[in-house]
Amino acid sequence: MRALILNKTISFRDDYPRPEPIGDEALVRVAYAGVCATDMELVKGYMGFSGVPGHEFSGVVEWAPDKSFAGRRVTGSINIGCATCVYCASGLENHCPRRKVLGILNKDGAFAEYLTLPEKNLYLLPDSISFEEAVFIEPLGAAFEIIRQIPVGSGVSVAVLGDGKLGLLVALVLMQTGCDLTLIGRHTHRLDAFKQKGISVSCGMEGVHTEFDVTVDCTGESKGLFNALSITRPRGTVVLKTTVAKRSGEALNKAVIDEITIVGSRCGPFTPAIQAIAGGTIDVKPFISAVYPLEEGLCAIDESGKSSVLKVLISVDDGAGV
Amino acid sequence: MRALILNKTISFRDDYPRPEPIGDEALVRVAYAGVCATDMELVKGYMGFSGVPGHEFSGVVEWAPDKSFAGRRVTGSINIGCATCVYCASGLENHCPRRKVLGILNKDGAFAEYLTLPEKNLYLLPDSISFEEAVFIEPLGAAFEIIRQIPVGSGVSVAVLGDGKLGLLVALVLMQTGCDLTLIGRHTHRLDAFKQKGISVSCGMEGVHTEFDVTVDCTGESKGLFNALSITRPRGTVVLKTTVAKRSGEALNKAVIDEITIVGSRCGPFTPAIQAIAGGTIDVKPFISAVYPLEEGLCAIDESGKSSVLKVLISVDDGAGV
Repeated sequence: MRALILNKTISFRDDYPRPEPIGDEALVRVAYAGVCATDMELVKGYMGFSGVPGHEFSGVVEWAPDKSFAGRRVTGSINIGCATCVYCASGLENHCPRRKVLGILNKDGAFAEYLTLPEKNLYLLPDSISFEEAVFIEPLGAAFEIIRQIPVGSGVSVAVLGDGKLGLLVALVLMQTGCDLTLIGRHTHRLDAFKQKGISVSCGMEGVHTEFDVTVDCTGESKGLFNALSITRPRGTVVLKTTVAKRSGEALNKAVIDEITIVGSRCGPFTPAIQAIAGGTIDVKPFISAVYPLEEGLCAIDESGKSSVLKVLISVDDGAGV
Repeated sequence: MRALILNKTISFRDDYPRPEPIGDEALVRVAYAGVCATDMELVKGYMGFSGVPGHEFSGVVEWAPDKSFAGRRVTGSINIGCATCVYCASGLENHCPRRKVLGILNKDGAFAEYLTLPEKNLYLLPDSISFEEAVFIEPLGAAFEIIRQIPVGSGVSVAVLGDGKLGLLVALVLMQTGCDLTLIGRHTHRLDAFKQKGISVSCGMEGVHTEFDVTVDCTGESKGLFNALSITRPRGTVVLKTTVAKRSGEALNKAVIDEITIVGSRCGPFTPAIQAIAGGTIDVKPFISAVYPLEEGLCAIDESGKSSVLKVLISVDDGAGV
């Protein structure tokens, strides 16, 4: 099959073996995949991953042990637990120490014609969600994770640091909570779009004098934590949404002195993300900056690294099962 | 009066002006003061403090607006709020942005014959607490702060990293909660003393394979956070008790991936610390490694920096008011 293969360097191949579903796995024909910052990190060597990257996807079930899945439009959660440990038993497969992660850890991913995933990882797509939109369910779920971890709502002042794709998705989710939201970024046109929705915005940190109850660092930058702590009130909360190759820890003295809580936050629930897109409360279509065919996947990854670009999609099989 | 004065370098003087109480302040004749790691940091330039250091003390009220204080044996909390901001109004003077901090920030401290503090900062000492023991109330309160911030008790596995004076005080407090406690340090004799109390101990990190629910970093070392995160379970909690001049932040990626919460923790409540010492549930006397007269305060600070030493006291006026 056609696939992008990472093996120290990334390349396109048209003869990669099609994955065989094992046990409770379904075989999914991929329609679209999304390029995420993590993919770019993987290409740089993060996690030492080799195989097919890609963990944001939509597609059609080609075959599954449960025949009712066949032909259904799906996306899928990316953590595959061992099913026996205490985390898996508690529904926390995301934290299973022996987990595989689609396109990230010991499991070929979505930048290919086919992928396999356990049936219980699959989520059916309502008709109102297109294949393109469905690619956003995984990252939007990661944004919803925040409100599962900490109380955010009316009367809580929240800053989102970073107006990249994750920061904007987080801002869209937090808007729904009725909190007093400020988006801090560096792309005037993106900030303007949020200003028109009635959200406070700031281009850069300089004009920011508020001490927020909660600050969410979505910058993916080494200075993100420092900046987040600097605008968070004593006893407030900083949510760390991104891994960063190099990050200074000196800012953590402020966390000690001001007794700030730092909450690590990763993958999140798919159901509220599906509901938000299906119900129209969150519109992800404006996030699509470009669409490349799988054969031009390397260009897609390059393009995704540009600061002016939001989400780049890879069109694997636009007519998958349609 | 006699005092240790920090002004880039630290020196003893016998002609430093005696402080004058202002407004609601009492004048306290110092009996004993304790040397804390923070004092050693101040001497190295931390906070840019100049004046009289020292924030752990016991003494006798020489004069106070409320005459009933006169002659009473006291210690005192060290944060002096502005009394008007939202933090002060909420009883969180510790986090007042305009606060002074005894011997640390804009307020002369306890390495001197006299200090001044607002009456509301004073805590009366029960007869069963000696002046020497009372010096431990402030750092012991900082240890009690942890159980005010996070739930610790039966069924919760907790590691304390560091067997310096703070680590040991924290371990003594956490022992009272019935949690499943492990103390990790590098001083065999200190660890043995805890082993005899029935606490799990480990000399070094190598033998530690547990994933703890809660890890408290009391190392004061740059690697402390990394080590703490490495032994904390997914969705667990790391408590940061110490400021560190240089600290790597790369370990924070584990906090994101494993969704670990990091809680900054600083000053704490005096009342439980007084009760624990007065009631004999916590014995601080074994922590006293050495006592120096104020004139030899520089030796006391030097001595305090040695790894083999726990608490060094400065005897200012052993017979204060007695």
